[in-house]
Amino acid sequence: MHSSELNARIVERGRDFFTSIAGEKPSLFDKGSWVGKMVDWSIGNEQFKVQMFRFVDVFPSLTTGKLLTGHIREYFGDEREMPPFMATGARVAGMLGSLGGAVLGKVLTSNIQEMARQFIVGETTAEAVKNLRKLRSGGFAAVVDVLGEATLSEEEAESYTNTYLELLDALHGEQGQWQGLPEAGGDPALDWGHAPIVNIAVKPTALFCLANPQDFEGSVAAILNRMRRIFRKVMAVNGFLCIDMKSYRFKDITLEVFRRLRLEHPGYPHLGIALQAYLKDTDRDLDNLLAWAKEHGVAVSIRLVKGAYWDYETVRAGQNGWEVPVWTVKAESDAAFERQARTILENHRICHFACASHNIRTIAAVMEMARELNVPDDRYEFQVLYGMAEPVRKGILKVAGRVRLYAPYGHMVPGMGYLVRRLLENTANESFLRRSFAEEARIEQLLEDPAVTAERKLEASSEPPEMARKGLGGFPPFRNEPMADFTRADHRAAFPKALAQVRGQLGKTYPLFINGRDIMTGNLLPTVNPNRLSEVLGQICQAGTKEVDDAITAAVAAFPAWRDTDTRKRAGYLLKAAEAARGRIFELSAWQILEIGKQWDQAYADVTEAIDFLEYYAREMVRLGEPRRLGHAPGELNHYLYEPKGVAAVIAPWNFPLAISTGMAAAAIVTGNCVVYKPSGLTPLMGRCLAELFREAGLPPGVFNYTPGPSATMGDYLVDHPAVSLIAFTGSMETGLRIIERAATVHPGQQNVKKVICEMGGKNAIIIDDDADLDEAVPQVLLSAFGFQGQKCSACSRVIVLDAIHDRFAERLVAMARATTAGPPEDPAHFMGAVADEKAAARIRGYIELGKTEGQLLYEGPVPEGEGYYVPMAIIDGILPEHRIAREEIFGPVLAVMRARDFDEAIRWANAPRFALTGGVFSRSPAHLEQARREFRVGNLYLNRGITGALVERQPFGGSRMSGVGTKAGGADYLLHFMDPRVVTENTMRRGFAPRGHEDAGVE
Amino acid sequence: MHSSELNARIVERGRDFFTSIAGEKPSLFDKGSWVGKMVDWSIGNEQFKVQMFRFVDVFPSLTTGKLLTGHIREYFGDEREMPPFMATGARVAGMLGSLGGAVLGKVLTSNIQEMARQFIVGETTAEAVKNLRKLRSGGFAAVVDVLGEATLSEEEAESYTNTYLELLDALHGEQGQWQGLPEAGGDPALDWGHAPIVNIAVKPTALFCLANPQDFEGSVAAILNRMRRIFRKVMAVNGFLCIDMKSYRFKDITLEVFRRLRLEHPGYPHLGIALQAYLKDTDRDLDNLLAWAKEHGVAVSIRLVKGAYWDYETVRAGQNGWEVPVWTVKAESDAAFERQARTILENHRICHFACASHNIRTIAAVMEMARELNVPDDRYEFQVLYGMAEPVRKGILKVAGRVRLYAPYGHMVPGMGYLVRRLLENTANESFLRRSFAEEARIEQLLEDPAVTAERKLEASSEPPEMARKGLGGFPPFRNEPMADFTRADHRAAFPKALAQVRGQLGKTYPLFINGRDIMTGNLLPTVNPNRLSEVLGQICQAGTKEVDDAITAAVAAFPAWRDTDTRKRAGYLLKAAEAARGRIFELSAWQILEIGKQWDQAYADVTEAIDFLEYYAREMVRLGEPRRLGHAPGELNHYLYEPKGVAAVIAPWNFPLAISTGMAAAAIVTGNCVVYKPSGLTPLMGRCLAELFREAGLPPGVFNYTPGPSATMGDYLVDHPAVSLIAFTGSMETGLRIIERAATVHPGQQNVKKVICEMGGKNAIIIDDDADLDEAVPQVLLSAFGFQGQKCSACSRVIVLDAIHDRFAERLVAMARATTAGPPEDPAHFMGAVADEKAAARIRGYIELGKTEGQLLYEGPVPEGEGYYVPMAIIDGILPEHRIAREEIFGPVLAVMRARDFDEAIRWANAPRFALTGGVFSRSPAHLEQARREFRVGNLYLNRGITGALVERQPFGGSRMSGVGTKAGGADYLLHFMDPRVVTENTMRRGFAPRGHEDAGVE
Repeated sequence: MHSSELNARIVERGRDFFTSIAGEKPSLFDKGSWVGKMVDWSIGNEQFKVQMFRFVDVFPSLTTGKLLTGHIREYFGDEREMPPFMATGARVAGMLGSLGGAVLGKVLTSNIQEMARQFIVGETTAEAVKNLRKLRSGGFAAVVDVLGEATLSEEEAESYTNTYLELLDALHGEQGQWQGLPEAGGDPALDWGHAPIVNIAVKPTALFCLANPQDFEGSVAAILNRMRRIFRKVMAVNGFLCIDMKSYRFKDITLEVFRRLRLEHPGYPHLGIALQAYLKDTDRDLDNLLAWAKEHGVAVSIRLVKGAYWDYETVRAGQNGWEVPVWTVKAESDAAFERQARTILENHRICHFACASHNIRTIAAVMEMARELNVPDDRYEFQVLYGMAEPVRKGILKVAGRVRLYAPYGHMVPGMGYLVRRLLENTANESFLRRSFAEEARIEQLLEDPAVTAERKLEASSEPPEMARKGLGGFPPFRNEPMADFTRADHRAAFPKALAQVRGQLGKTYPLFINGRDIMTGNLLPTVNPNRLSEVLGQICQAGTKEVDDAITAAVAAFPAWRDTDTRKRAGYLLKAAEAARGRIFELSAWQILEIGKQWDQAYADVTEAIDFLEYYAREMVRLGEPRRLGHAPGELNHYLYEPKGVAAVIAPWNFPLAISTGMAAAAIVTGNCVVYKPSGLTPLMGRCLAELFREAGLPPGVFNYTPGPSATMGDYLVDHPAVSLIAFTGSMETGLRIIERAATVHPGQQNVKKVICEMGGKNAIIIDDDADLDEAVPQVLLSAFGFQGQKCSACSRVIVLDAIHDRFAERLVAMARATTAGPPEDPAHFMGAVADEKAAARIRGYIELGKTEGQLLYEGPVPEGEGYYVPMAIIDGILPEHRIAREEIFGPVLAVMRARDFDEAIRWANAPRFALTGGVFSRSPAHLEQARREFRVGNLYLNRGITGALVERQPFGGSRMSGVGTKAGGADYLLHFMDPRVVTENTMRRGFAPRGHEDAGVE
Repeated sequence: MHSSELNARIVERGRDFFTSIAGEKPSLFDKGSWVGKMVDWSIGNEQFKVQMFRFVDVFPSLTTGKLLTGHIREYFGDEREMPPFMATGARVAGMLGSLGGAVLGKVLTSNIQEMARQFIVGETTAEAVKNLRKLRSGGFAAVVDVLGEATLSEEEAESYTNTYLELLDALHGEQGQWQGLPEAGGDPALDWGHAPIVNIAVKPTALFCLANPQDFEGSVAAILNRMRRIFRKVMAVNGFLCIDMKSYRFKDITLEVFRRLRLEHPGYPHLGIALQAYLKDTDRDLDNLLAWAKEHGVAVSIRLVKGAYWDYETVRAGQNGWEVPVWTVKAESDAAFERQARTILENHRICHFACASHNIRTIAAVMEMARELNVPDDRYEFQVLYGMAEPVRKGILKVAGRVRLYAPYGHMVPGMGYLVRRLLENTANESFLRRSFAEEARIEQLLEDPAVTAERKLEASSEPPEMARKGLGGFPPFRNEPMADFTRADHRAAFPKALAQVRGQLGKTYPLFINGRDIMTGNLLPTVNPNRLSEVLGQICQAGTKEVDDAITAAVAAFPAWRDTDTRKRAGYLLKAAEAARGRIFELSAWQILEIGKQWDQAYADVTEAIDFLEYYAREMVRLGEPRRLGHAPGELNHYLYEPKGVAAVIAPWNFPLAISTGMAAAAIVTGNCVVYKPSGLTPLMGRCLAELFREAGLPPGVFNYTPGPSATMGDYLVDHPAVSLIAFTGSMETGLRIIERAATVHPGQQNVKKVICEMGGKNAIIIDDDADLDEAVPQVLLSAFGFQGQKCSACSRVIVLDAIHDRFAERLVAMARATTAGPPEDPAHFMGAVADEKAAARIRGYIELGKTEGQLLYEGPVPEGEGYYVPMAIIDGILPEHRIAREEIFGPVLAVMRARDFDEAIRWANAPRFALTGGVFSRSPAHLEQARREFRVGNLYLNRGITGALVERQPFGGSRMSGVGTKAGGADYLLHFMDPRVVTENTMRRGFAPRGHEDAGVE
């Protein structure tokens, strides 16, 4: 908090500022204009705002009249449902028929284009330069930014880089004709006597399509390669380069790029970086940066902004279970800005400051702090976004003289993201501009010290709402275990460390675990690293039928007591196992990376999913363990309750070696069954880890038994065993159907009809609609199809692309694919590693060859040198529903591309295979999304996102038809399949006397 | 309402009455005594009251010290948990160890016995006579009642009758020595100069063990037979006979018995009947009775009581869905009493009046009305219960002189029911005595005109609480369809009428129903009445594989549109079908009576269950049809929803020919599947009725197809068909397992793994604990074992009796069985009819022969003459778990009796078979009931009631192990088996912008 003296001066200055611009309004709030009306309507109507902003987003892709009018109707309904200002045009032509629609389309198009032009300084370099010149004549300097954040390929990154180089050439050409903006003294060839006329901002992530904090070093190096080229040209034209900061995910990469570039040219002063005051990290980052600059004796320049991705950051953190990286109360960000501005100003000798804010309080505070600290004028300037807050920029110009406009230019498609962010800012409840100019809040409120405001607001909301949600059984409510957060240096460092630690333990022999004891057998089988075949991770004792019998005997013996154990207590064991897994999370990830070749994030996600299953099923069982009263008839008590079935055989796959094993076993155990667990022969060591977790949790002997062994002999033996009442299986369709068939035969001595919980394969499609956002669709398809080498039952193996967008999609997809590299996943630079084993590799290679005959190979990736089971990434176009690679599960990195005439055909094709597991749609057509909800009949359908990575509770996982029997792992119905329901009815009336309960229906 | 003048006089007299007994208390409220303390504690503590009253009920059966102390601990916990007054005795000996327990047992025993003695005038005739003499010396006349309401056999009824004859002899012997109670004038040999000294009350239902309004005429005749013998002796000793009125169920039978007896001896004046003011019927009954008396020129005597079975009547009506027959506000009963008393007094010339009430307001009102109407003293008297309300009886004696005490006598076991009713009366919130003497309510309140009180109370509670429960989808909440109510003359009359009507339509030909059209085939098969083999009900067209193919084709074609039909609309069809069934309920019952030989009530219950399935599943689907949002992560919407599987084969049994067919078909249909329905070959006509109901409901063509045909060929064909995705089957284990096995094979072209919903057989046991209430257990076992000839999968086929009670139970069971008759169920006098067909009859006969070799035949019923498929009712003792008739399902009227050492063994035996469907326990040991809840592992366990007749919603039905696959028909999980779950996940964030919902977790 400022001294009260300083604060008083700030408020005074702010008041003067308001007075100086009295009566003026930013054009966005001018209700005389279409955009002003639109903003006004959006502020008042959340539903309309969502539709309008989404429409603005999709607008550039509506390239035909039909698409345009169709979407208008889908987003806004017919004329009668639209706000009056929108329908004006259409009303002339009556209802939204073909004619009215066309008129409305034209009106909307011209208005949206006009709105875009307001924020974007030009669509071409020439246009931009022309407009910049005009701005200079009004006294404003500029920092020029090329629109676009995401590049999906090397080609796109290169093209983006080249645009900058071209821009710099053009600006350099102009520069000769431009005079420096006036200021007393200094170099007349510079603005205000000290600032380069050429000033650009570059988003580093646009320079490398695979930027990813998981591969921190690789990302920094790749970005730096192109940034260096831009910076060289900037230096050549004596310009200023600011490295922009966008999403939090890339913050540390961006800082590192800045630092390295800075050190490469320590003598050239005009290099800056943007920091975001809304990040909780920024105080520390700023201190570190200044300390670093001092240590290296270099000058830095910082553009401080509030930050424009608040929604995105909170959503992303919320979805991944991470701490929200931004301040959640707006005034906290404002206060942070003032605090950090002061730090920068205090260090003005080594740090040039660009204050980028439209907030008059903020601006006033910076001015007063600069005065108090005697900061020379050439050490700080003010920046305002082009097209926004016109009264503010005018006011600053009047007082400070030094205003630079942040001026983006470029094509409209990437520009729409920028446009939506601006609209969001201006319509947000807490927006300073909205409050100042659209709502006319009291000036005292607007100018209050934000530190004071923040404190008040935080106090008022001191009870977080979710604390009110009470958990069942005394457990806190279920939350998904957070994903690995590679923005954290400790998470990044933990993987190599864990890998090294695990490597120190290679070659051990792993016993069975039966009836609470380790059992060695003579029959050993090695488990190896598929990316490094000579690396034997361990020797696994193999169970024979004798050991399986022993395990079943132990399970049968343990069953009665386990069944009768209180459900809360049973749940407690799961929570203990979860705690154990949490404590070993990096180690368990490392084993998976080595045993089955998962990428870091994928391996970690497998462990978090295992933890989720434990935590979720524990709570589910507490919920289901409470007998439910049925009916309200007096004189009777009906209780509905569930009982376990007996001995469960859990037969697990290798692709989610911990998660799926844990899920099936935990469900069986917590419901009161006893488990004989057969891990996959490819991941017995992960299976052994599960046994250790349950042992650590203290499960009674016999409740969980670990018996790895050959599927060929052991699978049938387990399934046929008369003492097995329950089989939980995840794996291929062939094996699944075999289990279902065998389990249906009742053997002598068998007490129960066997229940089979069976998740099988998929042949999953993603549909790319003609209005899809390819910036999202292309990387998501790539990840869904090739993540973990496509070895997920949920993986995308078909992409069905609407004709109109097919070529553009295919081109960008292949280009992005080409950017990826393959190799052992322990190196995070590798997008793809080896597949599971030689058999799989051969099968996949066969399908690739088949694909080449059925369709046309679009892309076949390189296969790394080395001893792993490598297969190429393959994308095959021209596939039709009748082709085998459109029907059969490949379980590898092979993607079939299918060109569909229209959305109906796409849905039909998507549903065509016998499988019905996952599916996806990228579309911005509300009608098509609705149609997909109804008609795209798969177990897990994803709209506008990738189709892998289902989370426990939020996306219960599993399919129907030949993909499974309609159980849904991680969902509220799942545990029911492991139990039989019972009803106990008590007649409570004796001698005509029945106690009455509150729930009884009836009289009095 | 009375005139205000009269009411003022009533209040005045009441006040005088209170004054006259000021300071006195009924002994029940005397806190100086054990019973007074107990009553006081019961009033203050509902939980204690329940335990104490239940303990009083079980007390006489605790015949050993071990039983007694065990139960004390189970009912009241250990000494520290007991109310101080109870534990006093035990405290001397410390904790409830063996010694303390014994002490406490002794204390309790003597106190309960003393309490009983307070209400019961003696345990033997001699003791009763002695005490009556003592009462007379205090100025009180008496009406003597022999304890016991339920008799379970002819022997017991005979013995009960003989007790009365013996009593009359004894009283007659005394009579000579007794002087008439003093009164001015009249016959000195009569009490008060006009009343017989010998006065008895008889409960008619105790005179016939199978009394049942369904067999109205049979019940009246049987009761009259014995009542006549008693009345002859009453007349012989110049005594008075009052026919008592107990539960509402027998009210009309009782009235009829009275009327007939009255007309048989029109000249003998001293015959009375009790009426209950709390019955809503009584105003009308009273008017009818008086009109009848006038019409026949006979005198009547009426004892008007308030009624003592309020709890029982409300519970029974609530459980059966009937209108509650009693006034639900206490003051309504009080007002009715005054109203009816006035009617009787106005008719004093033909009607003698006994006013039986402890309520001073009531008594005062009767006195004042009698005075106003100039009723002579010899036309009315006052009655008070022996042992209660001592101040009241004293007060009346003072004012009116004529007080008769209702004095029961007899054994303690039947006396406990009487005792509990008295305790209930005195501890009820609304009890006049409790309010007057235990709570000292204001006299004005106590004396308020009850008509005024009632009006006020009714207004205050004008909104019935259940109206607040909102239904889903706009439907009112589910309620079970009411049972047939044979207390209603219209219900009784409807059956013969419907039977005659149905008989008028015999011999028609019934077509198939495929794709919305009737299809005739050349292959006809008759369906016949198993009780009258020559009676052909109709000719049923048989489907061949061609027709089945047609039906499947129709179902496949109808599926997509049906699947996409709004769930509410689908639910609506079910409700329409329910409405149609409701409109034809007696007709549908009549068809069943003829086609498969159900008793009236059983047939009707089958139709109500069918209606319940329709109504319940309709609502369930509306509930499940609403997509559920999962998780609270921002920026994503996860919806969980369900989809149908496709074509369902519904293969139905004959034993619940409408209900089970309807249930399975309705579940399949409402979830969006299309049905091919194969009824049992024994009940194809009922199946046809179902087709008609669905046609009437307007189901689209192809959604429901009716294809009766031979199981041998058609069953497998349907099950194997690749287009069938779902098989719902109810029937034998053999067929069920065959279906499960066949359905597990995936055939070429098959799209789904077939789901089998399968309910199979049972081998159900009822355990009779050594403290069981045999008055309840014996008839419930009989009904569970032999109702509908034992042809229910839920039927009791084993009764496991604890050694200590075995002989008594077996004797009473056999005696009751002997009282039953067999013959065509269209005659309601027949307890049992023919079994389904010759094959069944032969199988059952075989098991009876087997049973005779495995155990000892206890009873084999007579087989009626005639052409039906009759088998005898059989009870076989000495059966052990290893015997075949203890393990194999017989599906007929054969009951194995097993003698178990203790409760643990009983539970073990009960669980021994491969089946686990239903089971029951009769016990009054809280610990054993709890143990049964935990360890008696069947799908439907019933405590202290019969084990058949599960109701939709309240007792979802179905078992596990070899009884079924854990689906539960009529329960909340059932519909899930007919559907596959789907999850649709939408990423709602676009361009960093995600709409926020209220349910989102997270920031701000």
